[in-house]
Amino acid sequence: MTFDPTKHSHCRYNPLKDEWVLVSPQRLQRPWAGSYSACHHSVLSFLCVGRVEDDANDNDETANDESQKNNPLCPGVTRPSSKEPNPFYEHTFVFENDFPALLAEIPDPSNVEKTAKDDLFQCHAARGVCKVICFHPNSRLTLPRMTLDDIAHVVRTWMDVYDDLASKYQWVQIFENRGDIMGCSNPHPHCQVWATDFLPNEARIKHKTQKDYSLKHNGNVLLLDYIQRELNDFQKERVVVEHEHWLVVVPYWAVWPYETMLLPKRHVLRFSDLTPDEQIGLGKIMKELLIKYDNLFKTSFPYSMGWHGAPTGSMINDDCSHWQLHASYYPPLLRSAKIKKFMVGYEMLAQAQRDITAELAAQTLRDLSGEVHYKDKKN
Amino acid sequence: MTFDPTKHSHCRYNPLKDEWVLVSPQRLQRPWAGSYSACHHSVLSFLCVGRVEDDANDNDETANDESQKNNPLCPGVTRPSSKEPNPFYEHTFVFENDFPALLAEIPDPSNVEKTAKDDLFQCHAARGVCKVICFHPNSRLTLPRMTLDDIAHVVRTWMDVYDDLASKYQWVQIFENRGDIMGCSNPHPHCQVWATDFLPNEARIKHKTQKDYSLKHNGNVLLLDYIQRELNDFQKERVVVEHEHWLVVVPYWAVWPYETMLLPKRHVLRFSDLTPDEQIGLGKIMKELLIKYDNLFKTSFPYSMGWHGAPTGSMINDDCSHWQLHASYYPPLLRSAKIKKFMVGYEMLAQAQRDITAELAAQTLRDLSGEVHYKDKKN
Ligand SMILES: O=P(O)(O)O[C@H]1O[C@H](CO)[C@@H](O)[C@H](O)[C@H]1O
Ligand SMILES: O=P(O)(O)O[C@H]1O[C@H](CO)[C@@H](O)[C@H](O)[C@H]1O
Repeated sequence: MTFDPTKHSHCRYNPLKDEWVLVSPQRLQRPWAGSYSACHHSVLSFLCVGRVEDDANDNDETANDESQKNNPLCPGVTRPSSKEPNPFYEHTFVFENDFPALLAEIPDPSNVEKTAKDDLFQCHAARGVCKVICFHPNSRLTLPRMTLDDIAHVVRTWMDVYDDLASKYQWVQIFENRGDIMGCSNPHPHCQVWATDFLPNEARIKHKTQKDYSLKHNGNVLLLDYIQRELNDFQKERVVVEHEHWLVVVPYWAVWPYETMLLPKRHVLRFSDLTPDEQIGLGKIMKELLIKYDNLFKTSFPYSMGWHGAPTGSMINDDCSHWQLHASYYPPLLRSAKIKKFMVGYEMLAQAQRDITAELAAQTLRDLSGEVHYKDKKN
Repeated sequence: MTFDPTKHSHCRYNPLKDEWVLVSPQRLQRPWAGSYSACHHSVLSFLCVGRVEDDANDNDETANDESQKNNPLCPGVTRPSSKEPNPFYEHTFVFENDFPALLAEIPDPSNVEKTAKDDLFQCHAARGVCKVICFHPNSRLTLPRMTLDDIAHVVRTWMDVYDDLASKYQWVQIFENRGDIMGCSNPHPHCQVWATDFLPNEARIKHKTQKDYSLKHNGNVLLLDYIQRELNDFQKERVVVEHEHWLVVVPYWAVWPYETMLLPKRHVLRFSDLTPDEQIGLGKIMKELLIKYDNLFKTSFPYSMGWHGAPTGSMINDDCSHWQLHASYYPPLLRSAKIKKFMVGYEMLAQAQRDITAELAAQTLRDLSGEVHYKDKKN
């Protein structure tokens, strides 16, 4: 088998921006069958209307019960691209994306692509695996409305999937797209995990910045120093929630209006290093943050979120002591359930721009209830 | 006057990503009056419904004639935030954004903000100016449907505004958000110009990458070498349109499905260096590209676009010979007038991802007519 850039996932280098793009041409080979796949590429696609720019980001309100039982991610349902029905799972369910953006087995392009060793036309094979994790059997639930026990199962599954993939891949990206507005093709509560045999852009940059900081500051950890400064020097003005083990802060440099960072207060390199107590604490603080988010505009708050920790796989024995595990939440809403911040024009061409300050956003989130979800209020 | 981060535009540094964010808290001070400003922050806001996630990206079809005459960007209309009516302009019209993201006069934060000289909490004042350029008196026109003479006026105005601001500011960012889906708040054909006394992220990175390339390659210009390679080594497989002076190519490293780069074939550092012939040529090739774009999904094709050239202002005498002027078009549509590519989850947290290859996108665009707009076809 020889490398074929029209069939095999690969990365190409942008020499103007010093960053890479993942190209997944194999997804074009998938069968197109009627509105289901015409609507979107992923096995997850379900509410086709959700993929166009409509305003239904409050899935649990609009979907009716009947349709939710036939959701391809539900227990016992056979996904269009699968031969077997999903198991009758009771907590979480993990499967491989039927049309993955990454392939595990790809030959090297070096001897085929004349362009491989070129400053302007660089590419390398992109090997990896794409998994989906369903959070719960019930399509109408979201994380903030699950019980702490349900969420503990999600955290446990994150750790298991992470451990498994981290043994093989340099980078294991756990991420959740929530809401149609964030390109989420299926309202069933779920996240994705894309693991790669290379460091993607964000990972590569954070690896370098944290290492440089550590070298400059006697081995200190950038994010631990940052936490200390936030807690001690600024009257916690950007802190949203603080628990025993975990902290939620609107970072000083936040880009999205209500962007937050969730991180352990102790030095933790990777997901797999969390103690049982920290795992339980994680569920608690996530639930609190997500209830606040939903309460902000009284809507099922859309976001993309994901976890970043020290590299794994072939880098597992490298010195990664400069790393601190953290999750980032990037929610697009600006002023109401319908008005989002557009990252366009100036942002795409020059630099991200925001109006409300990080301090104001933190205060707003801090003042909202993180215990009672607006839908559970009796009035 | 002392620097106040709750009132003055400033940039904050993200030490994890090594990039800056522009914070414009002064925009919160603006008056909120009814649905107009509740709907969006900018003086440009007009079709409020356009700011929510609806599907009206084909403005010229949906807007009726009457409303278009009252558009705040039309000749003779008084903008809500202005005292004077707009002039009865016949070609283009330039004014300062009434609620700019940048302020021209701001004190330095150094002695006020204790955090100024800090590795984790860095900020600097962001001085600049935000202008709006109306392309044409008629709200229902878009660039691809204007005459070459109309477009020549737009190019001329770009050059004039550029010259004026370049004398004062390090970076003059001309950009156009087209279509509601791209956060464009007003269907009237227009673009914006944000000029700053600092290099925004994209400018800073491109300044460095082009300089490094030039140092490594005996003073060669990255983008000129790239053009030569595209034209000579690859059977023009990524070339969309080639004219005497200009070239449109889907860059090898394109991120958006139908992303293109438009650039002069000759070494041109800045907008102001274009010859009269090149200016006329620019209008021609833009019209051709934009007709192709509209024809692709038979819709008024949304995008963000902008111009990048060598820095100006206080950097005007620096050696910038490594720079090449170029425009980038970032269109979000993926598969139809309604189905866009979502840059979310993996893209925000790890790395941009695409399915169709740059080569396939180029071929598709190449094969479309760039002369006859789909709306002008008789059938
Ligand atoms: O054109 P407007 O309404 O000023 O605003 C639009 O462009 C700006 C510059 O790209 C963005 O910051 C806004 O998010 C977007 O909605
Ligand atoms: O969940 P899906 O349907 O696979 O797809 C979604 O997430 C992916 C990963 O962030 C993106 O590449 C897609 O653009 C988005 O629509």
